[in-house]
Amino acid sequence: MDDIVQSAADAKVFSHTIRVRWADCDPARIAYTGRIPNFALEAIDEWWRVRIGMDWFHGNVDHNVGTPFVHLSVDFRSPITPRFPLICEVRLLKVGDSSVRFSVRGLQNDILCFEGEFVEVFVEADAHRKMSAPEDIRRKLEALVID
Amino acid sequence: MDDIVQSAADAKVFSHTIRVRWADCDPARIAYTGRIPNFALEAIDEWWRVRIGMDWFHGNVDHNVGTPFVHLSVDFRSPITPRFPLICEVRLLKVGDSSVRFSVRGLQNDILCFEGEFVEVFVEADAHRKMSAPEDIRRKLEALVID
Amino acid sequence: MDDIVQSAADAKVFSHTIRVRWADCDPARIAYTGRIPNFALEAIDEWWRVRIGMDWFHGNVDHNVGTPFVHLSVDFRSPITPRFPLICEVRLLKVGDSSVRFSVRGLQNDILCFEGEFVEVFVEADAHRKMSAPEDIRRKLEALVID
Amino acid sequence: MDDIVQSAADAKVFSHTIRVRWADCDPARIAYTGRIPNFALEAIDEWWRVRIGMDWFHGNVDHNVGTPFVHLSVDFRSPITPRFPLICEVRLLKVGDSSVRFSVRGLQNDILCFEGEFVEVFVEADAHRKMSAPEDIRRKLEALVID
Repeated sequence: MDDIVQSAADAKVFSHTIRVRWADCDPARIAYTGRIPNFALEAIDEWWRVRIGMDWFHGNVDHNVGTPFVHLSVDFRSPITPRFPLICEVRLLKVGDSSVRFSVRGLQNDILCFEGEFVEVFVEADAHRKMSAPEDIRRKLEALVID
Repeated sequence: MDDIVQSAADAKVFSHTIRVRWADCDPARIAYTGRIPNFALEAIDEWWRVRIGMDWFHGNVDHNVGTPFVHLSVDFRSPITPRFPLICEVRLLKVGDSSVRFSVRGLQNDILCFEGEFVEVFVEADAHRKMSAPEDIRRKLEALVID
Repeated sequence: MDDIVQSAADAKVFSHTIRVRWADCDPARIAYTGRIPNFALEAIDEWWRVRIGMDWFHGNVDHNVGTPFVHLSVDFRSPITPRFPLICEVRLLKVGDSSVRFSVRGLQNDILCFEGEFVEVFVEADAHRKMSAPEDIRRKLEALVID
Repeated sequence: MDDIVQSAADAKVFSHTIRVRWADCDPARIAYTGRIPNFALEAIDEWWRVRIGMDWFHGNVDHNVGTPFVHLSVDFRSPITPRFPLICEVRLLKVGDSSVRFSVRGLQNDILCFEGEFVEVFVEADAHRKMSAPEDIRRKLEALVID
């Protein structure tokens, strides 16, 4: 039964692969620090697209649902290079009334390169005013939380 | 005497102004989340250039002193727009044997937009191997810490 | 009299200085190719702000005047590094009924690093529909053309 | 026989798909101008990786073969949005003694969004000195030219 619980949790982890390129690297021959939060953000936007069916563009422009970030933190564990694909694992950690918290871990060649947390809040996109998560989105989100 | 202490601390705060542009903004008409750590990093690189006389490029390429980041965290307090200059205040909070910790606060029109902390470690740039801060740099750094 | 003509033309050249940074450089230790059109675009946006009093953000958001690009070309003459300021010279070459053409030259330490041409067209920002340049803007533009 | 010639040419066209995102868009809700040359450059770097077996990072760092750009030009035909995948078609147009010329066309939903040309030259990466294309690379390149 623990195995079943584990495999349900595994299924909720979302993997997004990024090819790190010359364009991402600085003269130290590794991905520039400022690129790395952007890798994580790309993985989260892709999570929304695939898991919820609504990425940030569609949410804002088509549904008036904005989800700006109020927090991000990243610990850099190992340099990121173009030599291996960068696997970004996204986990939805928590759904509040009007916020969501994700963790993102980035791995290359089975080595942890970075891990971080990212918090978004729900706003009416046009008014930029805080709101509760729309009911249909909340239901989808709650089913995806990893305990 | 408190005034003297205060003004010495004020003098250690470094201000770097960034003009936020159309290019930085997303369809919500505010600076994209992923740009904001980059604003803070630019302010820290400028701090190195002005306060220590050695920015990241010169440190790495000319002096073999690399200072990669091991941590960053940012709280987003208010949206950033092209309507006002973005004043980034950099404070050196702590100098360890082989690391430095900064805070960066970003303000527009006297409103706090973001605040965050950023930790760099010293490495031999060519070998990417941890080292103690070089003695001349450490002396300059220690004089700039804000208690 | 030739001197007077020359100095009037000189006054129409707009200079915008960019500090090239570690963040802009690739492992070849020079500014990454993809950054360079962005330097030129930044200089043009600043030209609009200073010379016309309306940068791209204000034009689009406050005045419903969009000016998307239909063309850009850049010749790269010499590598760009963080060792010198990058002076971007912007010249307004031509004003058509619904378009403007700029040249941008980038220099470091008196050496030409890049030169390019950039063409924008006027559109109603909300409808993204081509239009003639608004009369007040056209008058300002025409006075700034460099023959 | 014309069909055979045509299908050989088709096989030489390289397609690279980019997912355009919120992060790429400006307040006009379309991909920012300055991002678009970067999309094309990504497609060319991927071309090198897949077709030659050596992307820019590996060429520079592992083989001392640099290929900096001396020219790029882009015509923007239609706005680029997150609503459709962006298909970038790369064609190798010409191989000179020490240069290569590509065209890149970007399409969304069968509509041409941009087309451009990009020229790289061969240099010894460490010395940044012009050189002829290495013989093994030149042979691969010549077989891929689209007449």
